[in-house]
Amino acid sequence: MIHTTRLFVPAVTPFAPDLSVDLPRFVAFCQQLLADGADGLACFGTTSEANSMSVSERMAALEALIAAGIAPDRLIPGTGCSALPDSIALTKHALSLGVRGTLTLPPFFYKPLTEDGVFASFARVIEAAGTDRGWLYLYHIPQMSGVPITLPLIDRLITAFPGVVAGLKDSSGNWDNTASVIAAFPQIATYSASESLLVKNVAAGGAGCISASANVNVRGIMALIRGLGKPQEAVLLERVGAIRSVFEKVPLIPAIKAAVALRMDDEGYAIVRPPLVALGPDHAAAVQAAHVLSSEGD
Amino acid sequence: MIHTTRLFVPAVTPFAPDLSVDLPRFVAFCQQLLADGADGLACFGTTSEANSMSVSERMAALEALIAAGIAPDRLIPGTGCSALPDSIALTKHALSLGVRGTLTLPPFFYKPLTEDGVFASFARVIEAAGTDRGWLYLYHIPQMSGVPITLPLIDRLITAFPGVVAGLKDSSGNWDNTASVIAAFPQIATYSASESLLVKNVAAGGAGCISASANVNVRGIMALIRGLGKPQEAVLLERVGAIRSVFEKVPLIPAIKAAVALRMDDEGYAIVRPPLVALGPDHAAAVQAAHVLSSEGD
Repeated sequence: MIHTTRLFVPAVTPFAPDLSVDLPRFVAFCQQLLADGADGLACFGTTSEANSMSVSERMAALEALIAAGIAPDRLIPGTGCSALPDSIALTKHALSLGVRGTLTLPPFFYKPLTEDGVFASFARVIEAAGTDRGWLYLYHIPQMSGVPITLPLIDRLITAFPGVVAGLKDSSGNWDNTASVIAAFPQIATYSASESLLVKNVAAGGAGCISASANVNVRGIMALIRGLGKPQEAVLLERVGAIRSVFEKVPLIPAIKAAVALRMDDEGYAIVRPPLVALGPDHAAAVQAAHVLSSEGD
Repeated sequence: MIHTTRLFVPAVTPFAPDLSVDLPRFVAFCQQLLADGADGLACFGTTSEANSMSVSERMAALEALIAAGIAPDRLIPGTGCSALPDSIALTKHALSLGVRGTLTLPPFFYKPLTEDGVFASFARVIEAAGTDRGWLYLYHIPQMSGVPITLPLIDRLITAFPGVVAGLKDSSGNWDNTASVIAAFPQIATYSASESLLVKNVAAGGAGCISASANVNVRGIMALIRGLGKPQEAVLLERVGAIRSVFEKVPLIPAIKAAVALRMDDEGYAIVRPPLVALGPDHAAAVQAAHVLSSEGD
C-alpha cells in the first residue's frame, strides 16, 4: 500500500506564567503551523508536555483548536495515559469531535508488562471508542513509557480489530525497528520521529514524520517532502538535518519552546511546566543558530 | 529522633467485573486490615493499582473510607501523578479530609529529569497544599517511576520547606539506599517496602514498613513489630519472610489480589485492571501455600 507522505507536528503547549494552559497562544501557534504548510497536528504528544496536563486541560485545549476553525481531520491528538479510564475518556472525547485519529501511548507506570496486559489495555480503549474506522495510531516511545509497542502486539491488535489500527509513530530512534514495522504491516501508516529519517522512511514504504523539531521548521520539512526523489532531495535533507541536530544536543522540549518563542517573536512561548525546566543561558546560542537556519527560507 | 515503629498497608483496590472501582469491597477490606491491627493504610500506592485509576475515582474511594468511619489520621494516600495539576488536586483533596499525610510519587513520564525539575514539581505541590505541618511522604520507586528521590533532592525539600517532609518510603529494594536516607535525615520517618527488612530498618533508626504483602499478613507483621528486640524476633522475622518470599517469585500485584481473595473468601477481590492481568493457574498453588502460612495464627 502506498501512503501519502505527511508531516504532523507535535505542537508545543504554551503555558501562562501561572502555569495554566495558555489557550490563545496555543491556538495562534497551531494556526501558524498549518499556515506554514503542515499536513496536520499531533497535538498532546511528548513534546507538547501532554503528560504534564490533566484530562480536562487536554479536552479544553482540543476544543479550543476546533472552535478556532481548525479542521478536526487534521488532528491526531495524544490520548494515552497511565490510567485506563483517562485514556478512554480522552479517546472518546477526541473521536466525538471528529479528529482524524488519536496517537495513543500504552499505560506507562507499571512495568514490566505482559503483552496480554498491554493488549487488554488497548482493547478496552478500542471497545470504548466503538467505531471500526481506522483511527488508532500506536505510539512507540519506550525510552519514556517503559512499555514498547512490539510487533506481536501490533499483529494482535490488527487481527482482533480489523481496520482500526491506522498507523504507528516510532520514537525509539531505532531505524531497524521502524523498518521492521513497515515491512510487517505495510497497510498502516508508519511515521518516523525525525525528519532526518524521512527519506529512508518513505523509501521503505512509510508515511512521513511526526517530529518535535517540526515545531520550528515546518517549511523546511515540507520542502523536503515535495523534493523527495528529485535532484534537490539531498540538499533539502541536509538542510533539515542541520536544524534537527541542534536540538539533539540540548534539552529537547525546553529548547524547542525557546526556538518557538524566537519564531513567534514572543517570550511567552518559552515557559515549560514542571518537571521540565526552562532552557538555561548556556544553550541560548545554539537555539538562536537553529532559529537563523530555519528562517533562511522566509 | 526515635520513631514509633509502624505498619502501613498499601491496600489493594478491588474492581468490579466491569472494571469500575468496587467501593463496598474496598471499604470492607480496609476495615479488615485495621481490625487485624495495621497502624494505617497507605492506600492508592503501586500495589493498589492507583496509577490505573482516574483522579475522580481516587477521590471517591478516599471519601468512601472516611465516610465508613475510618479515622483520616490513619491514612497516607498516594497522590503523585504524571501531571502536576492531578498531583496538586489529589494532595489538596486528601489534606482537606484530614489525612495523616500523602505518599507522593514524583512525576513519572518525562525522563531523565533534572533535580531542579523534580524539586520544582514537589515545590508546586507543597505550595498548593498550603500547610507547614509534616505531611509529605516521598515515594522512591525508581524501577516503576524512572525518577529517583535522591538524597540531595530530599535535602533541598527539607531545607526549603521546614517541617513539611514527614517521611519517605524506599521501594527500591536497595538497603544501602534506605540506610543512607535514615542516616542523613533521622528526623523523617523512613519506611522499607518489605517486612523482611523490618529488623534492619528499625535497628538503623527507620520507622517501619509499607509492604505489599502486608495485604495478606498484617497479623504476622504486627507480631514481629511487637517482638522486635525480644527473643522471638528471629522466629517471627523468618515467619513473615517465608510468606513474603512467595510473592517475590510471582507477578506481585495479581498474586496479592489472589491471596486477598482467599483471605476474604471472596473471588471478587482477585480482579485486576489492565494493564495488569489476573494471576494464571500456574501460580495458584504458591498463593494457596502463602495463604495457609498466613492463616496459621488465626
